Amino acid sequence: MSASLSRPRVGVWLIGARGSVATTVVTGCAAVTAGLHPPTGMVTETPAFTDSRLPALSDLVFGGHDTLDCPLPKRAESLTAGGVLPAGVATAVASELAAAEREIRPGGPTPGDTRSDAELITAFTDDIRDFTHRHELDRTVVVNVASTEPASREAGAPLPASTLYALAALRAGCPYVNFTPSEGMNHPVAAREAQLSGLPYAGRDGKTGQTLLRAVLGPMFAQRALRVRAWSGTNLLGGGDGAALADPAAAAAKNAGKERVLADTLGTVPEGEVHIDDVPALGDWKTAWDHVAFDGFLGTRMVLQTIWQGCDSALAAPLVLDLARLTARAHEAGLSGPLGALGFYFKDPVGGGPSGLAEQYEELVRFARSLGHTEGTGEAR
Amino acid sequence: MSASLSRPRVGVWLIGARGSVATTVVTGCAAVTAGLHPPTGMVTETPAFTDSRLPALSDLVFGGHDTLDCPLPKRAESLTAGGVLPAGVATAVASELAAAEREIRPGGPTPGDTRSDAELITAFTDDIRDFTHRHELDRTVVVNVASTEPASREAGAPLPASTLYALAALRAGCPYVNFTPSEGMNHPVAAREAQLSGLPYAGRDGKTGQTLLRAVLGPMFAQRALRVRAWSGTNLLGGGDGAALADPAAAAAKNAGKERVLADTLGTVPEGEVHIDDVPALGDWKTAWDHVAFDGFLGTRMVLQTIWQGCDSALAAPLVLDLARLTARAHEAGLSGPLGALGFYFKDPVGGGPSGLAEQYEELVRFARSLGHTEGTGEAR
Amino acid sequence: MSASLSRPRVGVWLIGARGSVATTVVTGCAAVTAGLHPPTGMVTETPAFTDSRLPALSDLVFGGHDTLDCPLPKRAESLTAGGVLPAGVATAVASELAAAEREIRPGGPTPGDTRSDAELITAFTDDIRDFTHRHELDRTVVVNVASTEPASREAGAPLPASTLYALAALRAGCPYVNFTPSEGMNHPVAAREAQLSGLPYAGRDGKTGQTLLRAVLGPMFAQRALRVRAWSGTNLLGGGDGAALADPAAAAAKNAGKERVLADTLGTVPEGEVHIDDVPALGDWKTAWDHVAFDGFLGTRMVLQTIWQGCDSALAAPLVLDLARLTARAHEAGLSGPLGALGFYFKDPVGGGPSGLAEQYEELVRFARSLGHTEGTGEAR
Amino acid sequence: MSASLSRPRVGVWLIGARGSVATTVVTGCAAVTAGLHPPTGMVTETPAFTDSRLPALSDLVFGGHDTLDCPLPKRAESLTAGGVLPAGVATAVASELAAAEREIRPGGPTPGDTRSDAELITAFTDDIRDFTHRHELDRTVVVNVASTEPASREAGAPLPASTLYALAALRAGCPYVNFTPSEGMNHPVAAREAQLSGLPYAGRDGKTGQTLLRAVLGPMFAQRALRVRAWSGTNLLGGGDGAALADPAAAAAKNAGKERVLADTLGTVPEGEVHIDDVPALGDWKTAWDHVAFDGFLGTRMVLQTIWQGCDSALAAPLVLDLARLTARAHEAGLSGPLGALGFYFKDPVGGGPSGLAEQYEELVRFARSLGHTEGTGEAR
Repeated sequence: MSASLSRPRVGVWLIGARGSVATTVVTGCAAVTAGLHPPTGMVTETPAFTDSRLPALSDLVFGGHDTLDCPLPKRAESLTAGGVLPAGVATAVASELAAAEREIRPGGPTPGDTRSDAELITAFTDDIRDFTHRHELDRTVVVNVASTEPASREAGAPLPASTLYALAALRAGCPYVNFTPSEGMNHPVAAREAQLSGLPYAGRDGKTGQTLLRAVLGPMFAQRALRVRAWSGTNLLGGGDGAALADPAAAAAKNAGKERVLADTLGTVPEGEVHIDDVPALGDWKTAWDHVAFDGFLGTRMVLQTIWQGCDSALAAPLVLDLARLTARAHEAGLSGPLGALGFYFKDPVGGGPSGLAEQYEELVRFARSLGHTEGTGEAR
Repeated sequence: MSASLSRPRVGVWLIGARGSVATTVVTGCAAVTAGLHPPTGMVTETPAFTDSRLPALSDLVFGGHDTLDCPLPKRAESLTAGGVLPAGVATAVASELAAAEREIRPGGPTPGDTRSDAELITAFTDDIRDFTHRHELDRTVVVNVASTEPASREAGAPLPASTLYALAALRAGCPYVNFTPSEGMNHPVAAREAQLSGLPYAGRDGKTGQTLLRAVLGPMFAQRALRVRAWSGTNLLGGGDGAALADPAAAAAKNAGKERVLADTLGTVPEGEVHIDDVPALGDWKTAWDHVAFDGFLGTRMVLQTIWQGCDSALAAPLVLDLARLTARAHEAGLSGPLGALGFYFKDPVGGGPSGLAEQYEELVRFARSLGHTEGTGEAR
Repeated sequence: MSASLSRPRVGVWLIGARGSVATTVVTGCAAVTAGLHPPTGMVTETPAFTDSRLPALSDLVFGGHDTLDCPLPKRAESLTAGGVLPAGVATAVASELAAAEREIRPGGPTPGDTRSDAELITAFTDDIRDFTHRHELDRTVVVNVASTEPASREAGAPLPASTLYALAALRAGCPYVNFTPSEGMNHPVAAREAQLSGLPYAGRDGKTGQTLLRAVLGPMFAQRALRVRAWSGTNLLGGGDGAALADPAAAAAKNAGKERVLADTLGTVPEGEVHIDDVPALGDWKTAWDHVAFDGFLGTRMVLQTIWQGCDSALAAPLVLDLARLTARAHEAGLSGPLGALGFYFKDPVGGGPSGLAEQYEELVRFARSLGHTEGTGEAR
Repeated sequence: MSASLSRPRVGVWLIGARGSVATTVVTGCAAVTAGLHPPTGMVTETPAFTDSRLPALSDLVFGGHDTLDCPLPKRAESLTAGGVLPAGVATAVASELAAAEREIRPGGPTPGDTRSDAELITAFTDDIRDFTHRHELDRTVVVNVASTEPASREAGAPLPASTLYALAALRAGCPYVNFTPSEGMNHPVAAREAQLSGLPYAGRDGKTGQTLLRAVLGPMFAQRALRVRAWSGTNLLGGGDGAALADPAAAAAKNAGKERVLADTLGTVPEGEVHIDDVPALGDWKTAWDHVAFDGFLGTRMVLQTIWQGCDSALAAPLVLDLARLTARAHEAGLSGPLGALGFYFKDPVGGGPSGLAEQYEELVRFARSLGHTEGTGEAR
């Protein structure tokens, strides 16, 4: 078909495909494509990315794994009731939701699952390959948007599910993005394999609220030579994420990312803790309060407080679309290994790079420009 | 004396020399020089400025104009009682305060003053020249830290006092810094003369709190393609500044600067007003509340609020010392005209330049580096 | 019919019948009656009012005046889109909205209206009488929920619209509630007539957010003997109310009420201003920030800040239903004059009474109890 | 001496006599007595208590136990540096601080202490008796203002220190106040003995900030029939209290009190946690952030947030003086058992009583009035 010849279609395989973020990704992509909403929050739709030869939103095809049963259209309905999706949009894009729902395969391991790690990886790999082939996709990007796993890497522990999926991505020849703090490709077993794979990957833990703020406020204090004494924070959130992060082990991974931003931008680790509270009453809405005690000239005590009230799925979804497009294009352009230039999106970026948002943005724009100059391997062949 | 031969001494002539900011500048410079306090808040004491050949803090000599009578040591006492200066420091640097006090000359015009503009300018010029000569200073930087004037430039209106002082600086051959929103060198009469003078100047309106925050948060929203719908703010402050800015005409100039930062970094002017309330009970302490209503993906409504509680004099003083040193060095290096590279310090920078703090910081650091490479004109001759 | 014999039906005649508050009142009354929602926010549905012999929600019949054309069902639709009404409820009570819409009569004076005050009052009176008779109502309560009028009572000025409506209520023999800061029954002309009418009335200016908080925080500071130095506040709101109150003359009436609460509960008027900003982006949602600077033991400076984020119509509507029921019952019980016991609901209560919320609540509960003991005049006759 | 005949002098024996609160109590009492400061924060100095026949501030004599060595005058110095005490006041009342310091006896058990519980109680009892006799005091009130103990009442566990002191108070015939969440008189062993003693006692856990607010905001939500969904809080504090409460076991006792206020005033326990973070950089200053998610009419989601920034010692000290005076007078008036009427002061009041601050205040005022009517047992005999 002429369309598929001239315009490469790209798969987006979502781990956690029936979660709030995935549902918002699929709904939002269709709504923006249909012109129902402007692409607010999508950095790749700003002028700096015009010439980056990214896949069009209309060329993205969605599928994924999930261990939950609630079908996407039903999930979209409940997100509409919760105010995450605007009234009417889910019905307007019902066919796209149904199409994505048809491409969701059972994830794992589920409780009582008797399959070995190897069997699970093979099953996942087959699912992704089948999806790519049936849709005649040029490539498929695997994106982890599942609930955060508890952090625990004891010797001899079984591989975390996120790593099983990451390995499946590698085996299926797919670039990979980890939007969560789970281990995924960071597990030594996967990291080794990733290095040999020649595939690009990005992560981890999307920077959507409190850490986004810290990534601009930390540099501000440093540049003004103000001495931060203590930086304390509390996050209130409901939804699945609140419950998952109420587990101290799961929160630990997330908090490490938050602290890293301060340490890197301030040059020291200030006093202060970070709390993540599960508050089911808040649903998908999140409130983050930060209290920064700092010293000015002659030791005068001053305070900055910030209160961020946002909807996590609505903050995450456009970034997931950005990342899928950028990573797909990076793959097309023949790039491999950790995509450090995508640090703008993450709390704990793979591949090093600066921690201040302004520098990360500059690096991202440079990267976007370079993507425009590089011939795609697809075209090269 | 060999010291004065090898180490150029620099005058700092403060307009508003008995105000809170000036008192904190003189006290703090002496306290840091004496090793009583670290130079918190002084950007020029960070590593990026090591090779910029700035005058040492110990080589700064203070004087200035004021229309008030309360002597500096007494003012320092009351700032100590108000918690602006830490206990003990004013007594520890009593001799430096007394020395600066001896160099303060009567400002003007005072109520009932019968002198013409020309006479006032001449008197101010003579004061500055006399100070420079008596102390055998290499140069004197004039810095306006007086209370904000009402903004009113009607045809035929008398020149504002800040412009009289700016003209005196030019006639005395001095570089000039306007740390306030008053007109000063921006008045057409002074601007014309400045252009011909070959002198460097900087301004205007130091960026110490709410606008500092806006200069990092504005770019954050823009870079993340989030749509800011409304940005509202309220400032509560006492001290002389609160009373001066409670005058809507005086506040107008200040608010224009605040709005400019948003317009430049967001690309649009969002809804929302800025209030400046005089709350004498707060003394020199300032609270700024900002409420930002923004849209995320699919139009989801989100909110960021910030609360900044700081001491204005303690925020301003280290920046004034920075600016005096940088402008003195720029003069020594033979630079002239508006110093656009100092936009990092100002709400409404002369000479254009970026509005985001991160870019302003980069430009400042580049400038600092260039100062190290340029021979001073003094050495050149 | 036996139902109308045993259960007195009560009219609620809303001035501003197509506004946000009125729409929420009609929608909510129907939704609660139908069991779709619990009566959250309705004080009269709590146990303390069980024996007060109030009219049932299902016995309220709605009508009113408005100068706007947008029909109630359409207004309910737009409130649903704005998140004020939950999805689905407006359609579920469509017939009740249509019924109320049929009972809305044109208000006035509209621009270009040539009718005299007397003619307007007569027209309004006839509308109310006609409504009461056609529905065979025992009584009709007139409630003003229209936009706030500018405050201006110059000699010889025409009567404000709110007072024309108040006079019409009197002439129609109806009890009256002023939920707004407009003059209404407080205008001397109406006040005189009210005194002679033998009718009960209540007002003014519903206490829904910032002033509600002040009515509990003011007493707290007083009871703890803490010295409040300054109490400053900023309100951000969109909707029609934001636009109306952006007019300083309209805001003046509202702010007087807010200040009165502090003066009465603290015993002094602290420093500080109150701002009301029109922020259309916020729609019907309101944010109120309060900053209280107070002194503790030995003059130690402390601060309390509150941020209230609410939906004004959703806060007002249940109170309007409460007031309609209580005032109807007061009328039935033969009470007349200002209902001081309803101060719990108002910023600026008619009839004096305490300003602290706790005392106001006690008085309200006492009143509720007394309503249970009094025979209604209807039954008495 | 005639003075001691006509004016009964009262001892105030402070457990934790060299802590921040105790130091502020002694300093403040002397400063207010000397007319250096108004009695801000002392409820007993308001008109409602004029006729309660309380001991005068000038008739209070201070002593106490502590396990720390830092003498009171030195502690006062460091509180002055930290901004808790205003400059100059500690030196102005140096002789009163020295007098109290002379009456501080070693507390216990200290690490390595080999004395048995019985020996400790006896030693403490002797100290208190000796103090009372030497100063010819009419009575001595024992007040616990020591650091919070970990909550742990396992079978067979040794008696907590706070209970040893409480028992000593009973044996010395002294009324007792527990201003902390430690067990003190609530331990079954002490409770039994208290019942038989005929002595009055009060407690526990002074209500100084977050819980004070909750005690007025909880009733507000209840009275307005608004449905509180979640109430979350974070406390940041330094000083010894921060460190003590960072211990989860110690925090548990404190949080139970906070939660109790909500449960009692709202009628349900809402979702949400309370965190207490040790932030040494804040010193004696405390910041408490509360986030209340509540439902309005038709389930509309609304939020109230409060930020309380106070100095804990300055909030506690005037209440301690109030309690000492009231409890001394209660003892004089022959009252015994738990003083439920003092619930106004406590998070977790002994003797039951209402939880809302307004009702507690009413009860306190009634109690104050009754104290004026009761003859003292001293005079009665």
